[in-house]
Amino acid sequence: MKVMLVILDGMGDRPSAILGGKTPLESANTPNMDYLAEKGINGIMDPIAPGIRAGSDTAHLSLLGYDPYGVYTGRGPFEAAGENLELKPGDIAFRCNFSTVDENMNVIDRRAGRIKERTHELAETLNGMEIDGTSVIFKESVEHRAVLVLRGEGLSPRITDADPHRLGRVNEVKPLEKGAERTADILNTFVRKSHELLKNHPANIERRKKGLPPANIVLPRGAGMVPHLESIGEKYGIKAGVIAGVSIVKGVCRLAGMEILNVDGAKGNAESDFRAKISAGMEYLGRGDMVLVNMKAPDLFGHDGDPEGKKAIIEKIDEAMDPIKDILDHTIVAITADHSTPCDLMDHSGDPVPLLIAGPGVRTDDIGNFGERSAPKGGLCRVRGCDIIGILLQLAGLSEKFGA
Amino acid sequence: MKVMLVILDGMGDRPSAILGGKTPLESANTPNMDYLAEKGINGIMDPIAPGIRAGSDTAHLSLLGYDPYGVYTGRGPFEAAGENLELKPGDIAFRCNFSTVDENMNVIDRRAGRIKERTHELAETLNGMEIDGTSVIFKESVEHRAVLVLRGEGLSPRITDADPHRLGRVNEVKPLEKGAERTADILNTFVRKSHELLKNHPANIERRKKGLPPANIVLPRGAGMVPHLESIGEKYGIKAGVIAGVSIVKGVCRLAGMEILNVDGAKGNAESDFRAKISAGMEYLGRGDMVLVNMKAPDLFGHDGDPEGKKAIIEKIDEAMDPIKDILDHTIVAITADHSTPCDLMDHSGDPVPLLIAGPGVRTDDIGNFGERSAPKGGLCRVRGCDIIGILLQLAGLSEKFGA
Repeated sequence: MKVMLVILDGMGDRPSAILGGKTPLESANTPNMDYLAEKGINGIMDPIAPGIRAGSDTAHLSLLGYDPYGVYTGRGPFEAAGENLELKPGDIAFRCNFSTVDENMNVIDRRAGRIKERTHELAETLNGMEIDGTSVIFKESVEHRAVLVLRGEGLSPRITDADPHRLGRVNEVKPLEKGAERTADILNTFVRKSHELLKNHPANIERRKKGLPPANIVLPRGAGMVPHLESIGEKYGIKAGVIAGVSIVKGVCRLAGMEILNVDGAKGNAESDFRAKISAGMEYLGRGDMVLVNMKAPDLFGHDGDPEGKKAIIEKIDEAMDPIKDILDHTIVAITADHSTPCDLMDHSGDPVPLLIAGPGVRTDDIGNFGERSAPKGGLCRVRGCDIIGILLQLAGLSEKFGA
Repeated sequence: MKVMLVILDGMGDRPSAILGGKTPLESANTPNMDYLAEKGINGIMDPIAPGIRAGSDTAHLSLLGYDPYGVYTGRGPFEAAGENLELKPGDIAFRCNFSTVDENMNVIDRRAGRIKERTHELAETLNGMEIDGTSVIFKESVEHRAVLVLRGEGLSPRITDADPHRLGRVNEVKPLEKGAERTADILNTFVRKSHELLKNHPANIERRKKGLPPANIVLPRGAGMVPHLESIGEKYGIKAGVIAGVSIVKGVCRLAGMEILNVDGAKGNAESDFRAKISAGMEYLGRGDMVLVNMKAPDLFGHDGDPEGKKAIIEKIDEAMDPIKDILDHTIVAITADHSTPCDLMDHSGDPVPLLIAGPGVRTDDIGNFGERSAPKGGLCRVRGCDIIGILLQLAGLSEKFGA
C-alpha cells in the first residue's frame, strides 16, 4: 500500500463575516473532499502544538516527523535547499533580495524594481568569494530573490538581518549572542562588497539607461544553520517524494532526503495546474512509497485577506482531486493543511487544521463533509503534526513494531 | 477508593468485512462493558503515541507510566522477570527455545517437537555455567520455551538472535554496535555448549528412543538489558498487583514492583477462567490500591485472523465482568486494550484503542456502548497510554498535588 499526503497550504481559516460566518473551506463546494471525508476518518491537527503559529517550513518539518524546535534556526537553509544548492550541516544560509540603495546606503527599492533580467550574471559576480576564510555561495532565484550560503568554521545563525524590511538605512548586522560577532562581521562585509561589486556592473548600467532601479546591493535575512536531518529513508525505511511549487517546501523535503518531483505547471500560486500535480503524485506512487503534494494557493489568498478568492481556489483544487477516488483501494490518502492562514488575520494563526484520512482499513466515522468545524467531531479527535507520518505509514502497513 | 484496570490484550481492531463492516468489539454483544460505558466516560487511547505499533511489553510499560523509549531494549528481560527470575539492572536477558538440530547444526525443529517432559533437567544442565567471567542463569518455561540471563561486566543487548526464526542453519550471533562483540561471542559459546551438553543428555536419549526430536540445542532471541524501573510504589505511593496469564505482562509488572497474583485458571489463552481473574482482582483490592487484570485471548484471535473467534471471546470476557458493576461505588474501573491486533492484519497495528472509565465522580458522557468508533465521541477524547495511571489515580483520590 502507498501513502498520498495532500497539503492545502494555509487552508485552515476562521469564520468569515463575508462568507456568512463560514470559513472558506466550509463555504466551498468540495464534493471530492467531502467524499473522502465520508469514506474516511476525520479530526483536527495541530501542525506543531496547540496554539503554535507554524510557518510552512516548521510545519512541514513537523509533518515529516522532525522536531522543528530541535532543527530549525531560520528559513534560509530551506529556501537554499529548495533552490537546489548543495548544503552541508553547519552551513549558514540566508534568503536575500537584490535591492536598490542610494549613495547614502538608504534602501529606496527593496526589490530593485522586481528585476527579472540578468540576475544570473549579478549572482555570478558574488558567488565564490571568500571573506575571512569563509566561502560564499550565492545563487539567484525567482525575480529579485536569491539565496546566500556561508560555509566555514565557527559560524552562527544568531545574527540580525541586513534587510531593514522597509525603506530606509541598510541594517548593520548585529550578533544576537556571544560567539556570533564574527558571523555578523562577515555578513556586513558581504553586504558592503555586494554594493561595491554590483553598483557599476554592466547589467545595472543597462538598467539605469532604461530608467530602472539598479540591483546594486544584496540584503540577506532569515539566517539559519543547515541542520543534520536523518533522512526519511533512514527514519522510516521508505522512499518518498514531493511535488510543490514553492522552494521552501521543496527545501524542507530535500533536506529530509525526499525526491523532488518537478511538474510542469506547478507554480506555487493560483495559476498552478493542480490536476497535473495530483496526477504526478499518483504516478510517483508506482515507484515510491509516499508522496507529499503541496498546493500553495490557499495560503496566498489568506495572506491577501480574500475569503472569496480562497473559497474559489479551494473549489478548484477540490475538482483536481477527482482521480484520488480511484486509488482508495490501495492507497492511504490524507488531506490537511500545514497551518491556518485566516483571511481576517492575513497571516498564519495557531488554530488547528482539519485532517481527513481515507483508504483500506481506516476506522470510518459519521462525518460527511470536510471542514474546520465538522472535523473535530470525527474519529481522529485531535492529533499533532509530528504524529501524522506514523499514523499514515502504519495504516499502509509500512511501519515497524516497537516491542513484542 | 481503589483502581481496577482491565486490559483486553490486542482487543482493538479495524472494520471487518466478515463482520459486516464492524469490528469484533462493535459486533460483540457486550452488555456489561456497554453498561460501564454508559455509566462512565469514553475515549480513545494511543498506547504509546499515535501511529506507533506497540508490543504488549512496551504498551504495558507505557500504561504503568514508564517511557518505553527510555527503558526498553528487547523482550528478554520481561519474559525472564515473568518467569520469576531474580534480575538485576544491567543483566542481559533472552527468550529461548529448546530446538532440534541435525549433525550439521541445521535447525530441523524450532520447538523440539513442542517438548513437555524433563525440560527442568535439561535446564539444570545449563544453569550456573560461567563463560568468560559471565554467569549464566537458565530456566525452563512452558513447553519448549526457556529464558536465559547473562550477568557480568560490560555486556550489551545490541546483538542479533541465534534463533534463525525458521528452519535452516543456526545463526551466528553478531554485534549490532561497537562494544557488543564480547556479548556476541559469549552467546555463541553458550549456544555451542548447549548443544554439547544436551545432545547426549538422558532426557534426549529417551526422546530418541520414543522417536521424538531431541531438545539438543538452545536458541536465544530478543536480547534486552534489564532496566532500572522506579517501582510503582516509589512513583505513585500505591500498592499494586497484577493478574495475567502470560509471562511478558507479569514480567513488566514485576520489574515495576507490582505483586504477581497467581490465579488458578489464568492461562493466557481462550481457556482462561476470566471470571476467576476478575474475582481475584476484586479480592486483591481489599488489601491493595490498584490491580491490573490482563486477558490475553483477544490478541490470539487477532493474530490468527479470526474475527468471529475474537468476537466470541470478547463476549465471554464481557460475561465475566458482571461482578464489576457491584464495585462501582468505591472503585475507579477502566477497560481498554494494550494495542490493536486487527484480524485483517494478523499483527499489531498502530491504531488507537477504545477506553472507558467508570466510578465515583467520573464526568459521564452520552456514549452508551463500548467500541472503537463510539469511544472517540466520548468525554475523554484522545489520550496516551502513559497518562492513564495518573488519570485513574487522581479519580481514586490517590495522587499528590503538583504545585500549590
